[in-house]
Amino acid sequence: MKSRKFILNFSPTGMIPTKTITPHVPVSPEEIVEQVLEAGSLGANIIHLHARDPKTGEPTYKKEIYQKIIKGIRKYDKQIILGVSTSGRTYNKFEERSQCLDLEGELKPDFGSLTLSSLNFNKQASVSTPMMIQDLAGKMMEKGIKPELEVFDLGMINYAKYLIHRKLIQPPYYINFILGNIACAQSDMLHLGLLIKELPGRTYWAAGGVGDYQFQTNVMALIAGGGVRVGLEDNIFFDRNRKKLATNKELLNRIIDVAKMLYCEPYKVSELRRKLGLLPK
Amino acid sequence: MKSRKFILNFSPTGMIPTKTITPHVPVSPEEIVEQVLEAGSLGANIIHLHARDPKTGEPTYKKEIYQKIIKGIRKYDKQIILGVSTSGRTYNKFEERSQCLDLEGELKPDFGSLTLSSLNFNKQASVSTPMMIQDLAGKMMEKGIKPELEVFDLGMINYAKYLIHRKLIQPPYYINFILGNIACAQSDMLHLGLLIKELPGRTYWAAGGVGDYQFQTNVMALIAGGGVRVGLEDNIFFDRNRKKLATNKELLNRIIDVAKMLYCEPYKVSELRRKLGLLPK
Repeated sequence: MKSRKFILNFSPTGMIPTKTITPHVPVSPEEIVEQVLEAGSLGANIIHLHARDPKTGEPTYKKEIYQKIIKGIRKYDKQIILGVSTSGRTYNKFEERSQCLDLEGELKPDFGSLTLSSLNFNKQASVSTPMMIQDLAGKMMEKGIKPELEVFDLGMINYAKYLIHRKLIQPPYYINFILGNIACAQSDMLHLGLLIKELPGRTYWAAGGVGDYQFQTNVMALIAGGGVRVGLEDNIFFDRNRKKLATNKELLNRIIDVAKMLYCEPYKVSELRRKLGLLPK
Repeated sequence: MKSRKFILNFSPTGMIPTKTITPHVPVSPEEIVEQVLEAGSLGANIIHLHARDPKTGEPTYKKEIYQKIIKGIRKYDKQIILGVSTSGRTYNKFEERSQCLDLEGELKPDFGSLTLSSLNFNKQASVSTPMMIQDLAGKMMEKGIKPELEVFDLGMINYAKYLIHRKLIQPPYYINFILGNIACAQSDMLHLGLLIKELPGRTYWAAGGVGDYQFQTNVMALIAGGGVRVGLEDNIFFDRNRKKLATNKELLNRIIDVAKMLYCEPYKVSELRRKLGLLPK
């Protein structure tokens, strides 16, 4: 049987894990670059980057940090698809959230994240007003950066359809489903099934889960014909008993092994670039 | 065939419609009282109240205005179930949003609205942080006011389950599904079906739809065994061509007529009070 190709979206850092919580999370640009290159050699084809202030370890929107990371990766890997984060979780001005979209030339990211509504996480609201979403989408279109659409619940797909209708985003589309947040869609077959049913045409998608739900969400996504998002951003433990802190490499290897059992293998980056309509590097 | 009883939740005013948009929306306490009493005589058993500043017509959180409205209703109707709004759509401090919960004695509302997450409407974010939601739930419990749980998307039911787990809300529960907002669950059978499937035990529910979707959502809800929320708050037109501005009475009569065809009739208020665990008046 021929393998089905899938998107393997690697999210090594995120905004929450700190060195105190897990020593395995890459925080400095050097650590992130190293783990991204390793992930690429294992088969990751899209990288979802978050920058951290090298002094404090806190999330930062500063493009200088993103620049260091992307430069470090591109020195060794010209091809791998790189996405930057416009998350409003800890800072929320347009000038801050969109700064990482200003990188140019060889350092221009392929993707910019675009969360499709305001929502609640466990302890905080994450606010992206309709105007903010449209402004970010507009800047991405102007810069030739593809939105990495972040969907946490059913209604956010409807908002993607609205952006399509308004021609604020262009096909082919790429959507991450993030399941299992407390006030969002859960890691459940019917939830994921309905999300998939609602997808607009010409959409590639991957699914990730929060915490304990990462692995099972990834497996459901593979079975359903989609891709996976995996990494310490969403989940720091390897086991459901929360005894063993995971490394990014362990998380990647586990899902790649299971993908093989399901006759799935990651897209080669060049093929995925063509599918997603991204310029070859 | 015996009629099935249903919840008929009447929402006459809301936060958006103004006299400029439709002359039929009741704005002054006197107008609201009059339309509520009329709705009660038609069969409405729960009233979802929003207060407006009598001078400007703008939404207000002031308990003095809620007091006027409730006093006006209770003068003629001691029984009908009255809910007040803690919406954060236009003001967002706890002291503002919770002020209407301070009414006491005969003027104490039966319900206080509790939106279960932050979300986006068409033009604005509506922010209810986890802390705000828990504080509002806590004050309602302290005051003996039942939360009218407002669910706009799938994940908000999960948050209701979390509040139940934390014992921040008590059974029996009451949930309104509001379908058709741009970044929320839509007026679609599978969306509503999955929302219903996810309901916690001991829950009564009603469904309303925004704009054009109000009527079809109400009908779906009746068919699915639930109640309806209807009124100018969510929809100002009688027809899908948007030629005829509706009155609250017309909206109520239409759904009551269709309910009859489906062998459904509104609960008598006294019976619904028992079912919902509300004190008799």
